Amino acid sequence: MTTVAAYAAPAAKAPLERTTIERRAVREHDVLIDIKYAGICHSDIHQVREGWGEAIFPMVPGHEIAGVVSEVGPGVTKFAVGDRVGVGCMVDSCRECDNCRAGLEQYCTNGNVMTYNGVGRDGQPTHGGYSEKIVVDENYVVRVPDGLALDVAAPLLCAGITTYSPLRHWQAGPGKRVAVVGLGGLGHMAVKLAHALGAEVTVLSQSLRKREDGLRLGADHYHATSDATTFQKLAGTFDLIISTVSAPLDLGAYLSLLKTDGALVNVGAPEEPVSLNLFSVIGGRKTLAGSSIGGIRETQEMLDFCAAHGIGAEIEVIRAEQVNEAYERVLASDVRYRFVIDTSTI
Amino acid sequence: MTTVAAYAAPAAKAPLERTTIERRAVREHDVLIDIKYAGICHSDIHQVREGWGEAIFPMVPGHEIAGVVSEVGPGVTKFAVGDRVGVGCMVDSCRECDNCRAGLEQYCTNGNVMTYNGVGRDGQPTHGGYSEKIVVDENYVVRVPDGLALDVAAPLLCAGITTYSPLRHWQAGPGKRVAVVGLGGLGHMAVKLAHALGAEVTVLSQSLRKREDGLRLGADHYHATSDATTFQKLAGTFDLIISTVSAPLDLGAYLSLLKTDGALVNVGAPEEPVSLNLFSVIGGRKTLAGSSIGGIRETQEMLDFCAAHGIGAEIEVIRAEQVNEAYERVLASDVRYRFVIDTSTI
Repeated sequence: MTTVAAYAAPAAKAPLERTTIERRAVREHDVLIDIKYAGICHSDIHQVREGWGEAIFPMVPGHEIAGVVSEVGPGVTKFAVGDRVGVGCMVDSCRECDNCRAGLEQYCTNGNVMTYNGVGRDGQPTHGGYSEKIVVDENYVVRVPDGLALDVAAPLLCAGITTYSPLRHWQAGPGKRVAVVGLGGLGHMAVKLAHALGAEVTVLSQSLRKREDGLRLGADHYHATSDATTFQKLAGTFDLIISTVSAPLDLGAYLSLLKTDGALVNVGAPEEPVSLNLFSVIGGRKTLAGSSIGGIRETQEMLDFCAAHGIGAEIEVIRAEQVNEAYERVLASDVRYRFVIDTSTI
Repeated sequence: MTTVAAYAAPAAKAPLERTTIERRAVREHDVLIDIKYAGICHSDIHQVREGWGEAIFPMVPGHEIAGVVSEVGPGVTKFAVGDRVGVGCMVDSCRECDNCRAGLEQYCTNGNVMTYNGVGRDGQPTHGGYSEKIVVDENYVVRVPDGLALDVAAPLLCAGITTYSPLRHWQAGPGKRVAVVGLGGLGHMAVKLAHALGAEVTVLSQSLRKREDGLRLGADHYHATSDATTFQKLAGTFDLIISTVSAPLDLGAYLSLLKTDGALVNVGAPEEPVSLNLFSVIGGRKTLAGSSIGGIRETQEMLDFCAAHGIGAEIEVIRAEQVNEAYERVLASDVRYRFVIDTSTI
């Protein structure tokens, strides 16, 4: 066991505060990672505030982790001390179900182990990246390629893979028109990735406030959804729409923007149910779907793709003691586009 | 112009009554069809009663039409007098949009011409199959293969293609588990077709009342959705669920029955919006989709498939004057499984 400093919420809705936690001793297949940076994901806030249901406290959030390997177990074959690595939203899964065998550990039918607010297969609660060090089985660790800085890489472990996976699954690429709903942490990655994949990219945002950013990040077009004429002008336009927002959407309005056989894929979602007229999908054989992060192999592929295309997250690096203030700014959409904690400040 | 006898609703919600209508003179590419049988589809009732919005009256319903060609225009190349043919839900489309060019006339982006309750490209209202004869452009007519009787073929023109198209699009076949929600006019065809395509077929019906029928039609399993344990037992089971019902479904419950990457495809739909928690599609990357009939080429493929597999609809042939009574029985689910009007009785 190793005692490490961390930022934790002692109870639901409580502010985060500095504390210490125990990390397990390195096992046969574990790597010990000195965390350098940890991104702040909107879902950290959902979970700290129990917006997604009952949670485990004290909670050390953080599933956008980038760091350097400082110790390896005797059975580790994939990593060596000094390797630059990342850890995303999960740190284990059953490894036996069809999905795990297919590299879709995010959909493990026996339930994967979340990086924090989860319970490991050893029965111990998991703690995330807002801490100095983490111990993770090497099979749930990915390599950060050379040339990709750790600070801009950290958010790729959730925001990057969450948008990359559906873009690939629904075949965003040359000749495809892709819309991204919302230009936040997830949305700005979706724009960069869809553009790098060769698609024609449109941002659909509430206002034109971030228009210059959107175009700079790779969007070809930018429209305000507060302007009702947007939905008339763009009717039947898109092959794929990635919705990154957690506000309740008028699904029928967005489905009307799809071509025949188009897909509206939700990677963000409101906590409450939304209303849907099924005729919105019957006309034009449309798909309303969802997607959750990505598998370990695909996460590595995403990092390699980002390195090859010079893609990192747009970040604002903060000190650990600014985390509660950062949460408020995330909720106010006052971040361009991801806060990253410099964990040396913990 | 030809005056033909027909059954029509003179106004919204009014009973159907015998009348006469005019059919246009046969044009260059038209065929005149002596209608032999016309199926009664639930959507006939929706439209007669304006459940789907304002409609055109007088209305001669009927888009499950089987008959024999009795005259052809000078430019007709596909059909000859005496040919056994069918007409489904549409009698024309723009022929120029991407969808029309791709054989997806049902999704014509300029709007196809419905067989009845529509307006032709000549500006005239269209009238359907509850009549002695119909004049249709040969490009919207399909051939009924030898060995497929006209009475059991008629319902294939809507109920058959509406279920065949999504079964093919979502690749029902050997090794796939397909559930059919509702064992009515559409559902019984979905069971027969999915079974013939080689899938393992499960019927999900409110009760076990039609269980023997379902198994006889080709289902491997039959479960009552009124039994809450059904949803526990079948969680994560299906690759594809075809919902044929127009009652509001608990979409989350049905989505929970899908495997990862599975699809719940609606070919029936309630008039009112339904409620959906988007997390139901995010977990397991699931698809909620819809499908509307099929293109002309695919309709021909479906008829050929049915002939090859000895598949027709299960029908109860009625006389034309029984149509209003039949409507009440359809609404009471008291038909196994499709009423077909013997149009010689008009």
